[in-house]
Amino acid sequence: MASPEIEALTQALSRLPGLGPRSARRAVLHLLKKREAALGPLRAALEAVDERLATCRTCGNVDTADPCSICADPRRDARSLCVVEEVADLWALDRSRLFPGRFHVLGGRLSALEGVRPEDLSIDRLVARLEDGGVDEVVLAMNATLEGQTTAHYLAERIERFPVRITQLAHGLPVGGELDYLDEGTLAQALRARRPVG
Amino acid sequence: MASPEIEALTQALSRLPGLGPRSARRAVLHLLKKREAALGPLRAALEAVDERLATCRTCGNVDTADPCSICADPRRDARSLCVVEEVADLWALDRSRLFPGRFHVLGGRLSALEGVRPEDLSIDRLVARLEDGGVDEVVLAMNATLEGQTTAHYLAERIERFPVRITQLAHGLPVGGELDYLDEGTLAQALRARRPVG
Ligand SMILES: [Zn+2]
Ligand SMILES: [Zn+2]
Repeated sequence: MASPEIEALTQALSRLPGLGPRSARRAVLHLLKKREAALGPLRAALEAVDERLATCRTCGNVDTADPCSICADPRRDARSLCVVEEVADLWALDRSRLFPGRFHVLGGRLSALEGVRPEDLSIDRLVARLEDGGVDEVVLAMNATLEGQTTAHYLAERIERFPVRITQLAHGLPVGGELDYLDEGTLAQALRARRPVG
Repeated sequence: MASPEIEALTQALSRLPGLGPRSARRAVLHLLKKREAALGPLRAALEAVDERLATCRTCGNVDTADPCSICADPRRDARSLCVVEEVADLWALDRSRLFPGRFHVLGGRLSALEGVRPEDLSIDRLVARLEDGGVDEVVLAMNATLEGQTTAHYLAERIERFPVRITQLAHGLPVGGELDYLDEGTLAQALRARRPVG
């Protein structure tokens, strides 16, 4: 048996998404063999993140500062607000560098099945941001799921009284998507949202 | 962009075997969201291992103590010594709980191609252990690769002057098979049918 410390490390790693018990063991061996190059940096990075971890009280992003690096960035267009379900969605959109504005993380989606109600999401906080003014457009970037769309419709109603343009991500064919490989739901969406050409 | 601390953590995780950039990002998000349940324990486990990490001067195992938990275990049969190429192989055999003796880690295999010579491996240390006496059997548990078998033959010659039984894992192992990847059943077969060398 490996020592309790090594067992604990293997366990902690095996609980990460994408790492099972076997790959966790390989990762631990890698860390043990590459103490300077792998174990040291990973330890230091975890400590730095753990010590500075903060949830942005403005947008709900998880970062090492509050306000987060996005809310604090003066080059970001504060007039445009993109509402997402989860921090992971914020990161995905941010990586794409396609959205120059700021974000708002709901912390989930409305779900009758899972008992998630409006008061469980960061909706009051969103309304408060709009009341503060300075926002021209709210992009509802919910997932293209039933619950995501239900959430988007609910949000649109909640904020319709504000003088902001409310938009949502277009639904349709993914780039490179071939018709005969797409599911019917996507096809239906694409057909329903068809636009005039030229 | 995520903060530099979070970027550094993503980078450190993405260098682990089995985790690419995408799964590293998912792992980081998981850690950030589960601070108490995931980030804390992983940090603590890494710190404990990093602070106590040691290479066993007796057998070459990597552990949090020297002598390692296997060499220090009085229930282990010191008369039986299993020689493996890498620490990963020791762990694989140890997990199987099929071998009640102790181990010796060579730290690699002879390889003309990679310029690995006998003096690059922990062979003198093995010979010294045999000179100390008390060992009845040496099990050569090299990988079933050309280099592994070359190493086994070389070792058998180096230690044939000692009054020990020299055996090797039975060749039910698939050609090219590496111990670390084998299921326990195959390992059990191979160990059970180990044969004398020469
Ligand atoms: Zn923020
Ligand atoms: Zn040892």
